[in-house]
Amino acid sequence: MRTKELEEGKKLNLDFGKLRRVANKCPKVIPVVVQDWQTGEVLLLAYANEQALRETLKKGVAVFWSTSRGEYGELWVKGETSGCFLEIKEVRVNCDQNSLLYLVEKPEGIGACHTEDESGGFRESCFYRKITDWANGKLVFVQLRKDGA
Amino acid sequence: MRTKELEEGKKLNLDFGKLRRVANKCPKVIPVVVQDWQTGEVLLLAYANEQALRETLKKGVAVFWSTSRGEYGELWVKGETSGCFLEIKEVRVNCDQNSLLYLVEKPEGIGACHTEDESGGFRESCFYRKITDWANGKLVFVQLRKDGA
Repeated sequence: MRTKELEEGKKLNLDFGKLRRVANKCPKVIPVVVQDWQTGEVLLLAYANEQALRETLKKGVAVFWSTSRGEYGELWVKGETSGCFLEIKEVRVNCDQNSLLYLVEKPEGIGACHTEDESGGFRESCFYRKITDWANGKLVFVQLRKDGA
Repeated sequence: MRTKELEEGKKLNLDFGKLRRVANKCPKVIPVVVQDWQTGEVLLLAYANEQALRETLKKGVAVFWSTSRGEYGELWVKGETSGCFLEIKEVRVNCDQNSLLYLVEKPEGIGACHTEDESGGFRESCFYRKITDWANGKLVFVQLRKDGA
């Protein structure tokens, strides 16, 4: 499926192979949930290795291990390209210490997601579609709290 | 580190090997963020394969692929042991279609996390500690919205 269809389509086409590819490229990463500390919106899910976490805490902005850049991945300072730096308010750890939750402040008027809606507006979060019909793999776009132009 | 220390300690000891072990056991799973649809609290992060997602949508409660049960994992109907069934309100998909967000309704008076606080009360979410001091790996307990006895 082409990127455009994957991102803007109404067809479910889950990439169940992603985790394995991530693990193969960089064995030592854990998933990071990123949540807007004010609205509570879950913005995205990304991955961090120890270095990414260290940089996150040092810089005070979300840094991830990029699962798409470079053969062995590299540090990805979220916002360096888009301007959407995510200021860290808190980094939480789960009971088993194998996943993280970043509570962040996102700049106004820009989306945490790199995609745009059909009128060119930003999308607050990457989770902008929901499954409505499993048998036929149908997706429907949802209204997020602060999407806009 | 013993389980008790991992769960109740104030020492950061992140398990960066988890993802690789998950991928080795079951190559075709994706991470699932579980959020309370009313409070907005992120409750936990788990994993689903296609079968777990199908069962989730069919039963209307969160079903995961267990990363700890059985050699090759197995379906884990959250709540079957604890009573904390998570009723599905919405299943969202991210832009790249490689992670999921379950918006759920959690029963009152029970925590989504299997751990208990020091007075035996439940914990609403698995993310009950935050990192306060990276250099010394220090964790501090946070107050969640609806923790209690």
